[in-house]
Amino acid sequence: MRPTSPAPATTTVGIVGGGPAGLLLARLLHRCGIDSVVLESRDRAYVEHRQRAGVLEQGTVDTLRACGAGERLDRYGLVHHGIRLRYDGRSHRIDLPALTGGRSVVVYAQTEVVKDLIGLQLAGGGPLVFGARALAVTGADTARPVIHYAHEGREHTLTCDYVIGCDGFHGVTRDAVPTGARRLYERAYPYSWLGVLADVPPSCDELVYAHSERGFALFSMRSPTVSRLYLQVPNGTDPADWPDERIWEELDARSATDGPWELARGPITAKSVLPMRSVVTEPLRYGRVLLAGDAAHIVPPAGAKGLNLAVSDVTELARAFAHLKETGSGELLDGWSDACLRRVWRAEHFSYFMTTTLHTAPGQSTFDTRLQLAQLDRIASSPHAAAELAENYTGVPQAPVPVPVASPS
Amino acid sequence: MRPTSPAPATTTVGIVGGGPAGLLLARLLHRCGIDSVVLESRDRAYVEHRQRAGVLEQGTVDTLRACGAGERLDRYGLVHHGIRLRYDGRSHRIDLPALTGGRSVVVYAQTEVVKDLIGLQLAGGGPLVFGARALAVTGADTARPVIHYAHEGREHTLTCDYVIGCDGFHGVTRDAVPTGARRLYERAYPYSWLGVLADVPPSCDELVYAHSERGFALFSMRSPTVSRLYLQVPNGTDPADWPDERIWEELDARSATDGPWELARGPITAKSVLPMRSVVTEPLRYGRVLLAGDAAHIVPPAGAKGLNLAVSDVTELARAFAHLKETGSGELLDGWSDACLRRVWRAEHFSYFMTTTLHTAPGQSTFDTRLQLAQLDRIASSPHAAAELAENYTGVPQAPVPVPVASPS
Repeated sequence: MRPTSPAPATTTVGIVGGGPAGLLLARLLHRCGIDSVVLESRDRAYVEHRQRAGVLEQGTVDTLRACGAGERLDRYGLVHHGIRLRYDGRSHRIDLPALTGGRSVVVYAQTEVVKDLIGLQLAGGGPLVFGARALAVTGADTARPVIHYAHEGREHTLTCDYVIGCDGFHGVTRDAVPTGARRLYERAYPYSWLGVLADVPPSCDELVYAHSERGFALFSMRSPTVSRLYLQVPNGTDPADWPDERIWEELDARSATDGPWELARGPITAKSVLPMRSVVTEPLRYGRVLLAGDAAHIVPPAGAKGLNLAVSDVTELARAFAHLKETGSGELLDGWSDACLRRVWRAEHFSYFMTTTLHTAPGQSTFDTRLQLAQLDRIASSPHAAAELAENYTGVPQAPVPVPVASPS
Repeated sequence: MRPTSPAPATTTVGIVGGGPAGLLLARLLHRCGIDSVVLESRDRAYVEHRQRAGVLEQGTVDTLRACGAGERLDRYGLVHHGIRLRYDGRSHRIDLPALTGGRSVVVYAQTEVVKDLIGLQLAGGGPLVFGARALAVTGADTARPVIHYAHEGREHTLTCDYVIGCDGFHGVTRDAVPTGARRLYERAYPYSWLGVLADVPPSCDELVYAHSERGFALFSMRSPTVSRLYLQVPNGTDPADWPDERIWEELDARSATDGPWELARGPITAKSVLPMRSVVTEPLRYGRVLLAGDAAHIVPPAGAKGLNLAVSDVTELARAFAHLKETGSGELLDGWSDACLRRVWRAEHFSYFMTTTLHTAPGQSTFDTRLQLAQLDRIASSPHAAAELAENYTGVPQAPVPVPVASPS
């Protein structure tokens, strides 16, 4: 591992957070000849191994390829042309390309995307400082906002033309915006996911979204030999209450179907409980501080939209910065928040729709369960309803990646 | 008014309830040479004047025409090729025929449908007895179920091959099914509608569904000179608390738009508060007792599905009876409940969707309001989302009207 560099004292774009949003933004800016510095509070090993999403929209794949992060993605990513809905003993396949004019998704873990982007950044991008914990961002309404951060026991400052908060929901950048100038929209859900990794080939070559009165289950994968499986569980569930045998039995019970189906079991290598919520902060820009990815919005995971929204945010943002650099016009930057938010709310609605259509809430009435089944039955029988799901799942088309003005790498 | 006939003591199909479901069923059966008797608890004037729905799906219009009840409908019904969604200051038109391959709706009041059907029935149909209050239906699981009813102070019985409960949600026919053999699915809503009739031409030539943080409003009509207007109000609202001036001001406030719009005011001639709920009874058949229309299911009014579902129920039912008479096969009758229920649940879901997308619930979070706006924005921008609404609004195609085996009228 290359030792992390100390950061310079000034830069054009200061990026708080070295997750996929921050790393991709740095990469896109670098290709356009715009300086940036990425400050990441954790160490490299932590960032490269935290389990997150795994379904990439076509637009996300295109962006990663266009900025040079497509090699391992193309080698190891699994192109999926469909998903399965399982409900009421039935199984229905959503044919994604047939319903969307050719779009599909790629299953490739977010951890791998992060590894690819870190590799590119360290090989020839701008500074990426691990262990640099942002303390505060000040001067949002001045021409030179400042990131205050701690690194190896000492405090430092990074003075920027713009600061981008890619530091997640618990990040400090959002606090640079006065509370009177921002608004938080939020929704909690009365259930969580128990997510497990298992060393066993996936039992279906496509993702299976299973509605059950016992609760939702999702059968996904990380690779041809590793399954990623989820069970709806009550909030506050302790993974220790779920021995492996109980997990497999419950996955079996929730995926029962009239058709052929056998759930292969294998060693479970990781277990964790994921709470879920919906959050949107508005606006995404205040003066010279901008928020992207989870720092700006959270979606529940059933729509597979979190990572893809982050990629959209920063792709649009890099385009706005390139436009500013090339033409001197801040028009795209000024319109960025509104343009993003429209897509964000679309994704929020879709994520809410998938979540509430597939999960069984505590105390849910039998009427509401029948409504869910009526909606699933409609998706299985109406081309428009199916296309509406497929379009949202594969993602609304994203902006093109900004064209490099030089070839700095 | 022709004096009501005393009913015979026996018939093939005994129909409890002389609303649109019961009257249309009697008419359809009569055309197929199947005897029936309709028992209606109220008098003719009451039945002909109670305010109900007013939007007829294409399939409903086709059915009414096919059974001879199309003359006044074709003369006075207003064909509507679109509806308007108003939200967030914007107005969006849903082009119904363009989105559904040519289907539209007809605005024609349910009271008029009832008048037309009563006219036909009295002119040449089977017995229709007003003031005949059903007390109980017995023998559902025998070959000859019996309707016990009171008429002009005396109790009578009508012995039938089949009894059809078209007696609404509060009717007695449902009780002929043992509670252990039926299941009720139900959902209450935390708001009602204040509905008014006003002697003023409608301000828009199509229905306007208005989302507002002040609550939902609907701008409809009964004729080119009579407006039918609705305001979302809290449950338990007393119409006396809504003087005319307050109603017009609130309608104005909820229909504010960036485009041209002026709400014409006129004398309000009727005011009432309509609670709303969703209810489904399953199954729709027990032995020789069958339930249709509101006796079987209730929808909240925002989807305009109540009357149309009732028409579908009895059209399918008449087809099943005609098939039984012609072929001796009870196959269609045996499958009737399941076939109906699939359409009922589709309509329940659509009605729930329209209701919860357009109304503001007490204490609704700003997040949930933004989700509603995101959904409306999606309908306004996605052809699939718009078509999904238009298809449900104009109605899933209905079964053809059974062909008469004779020409009894």
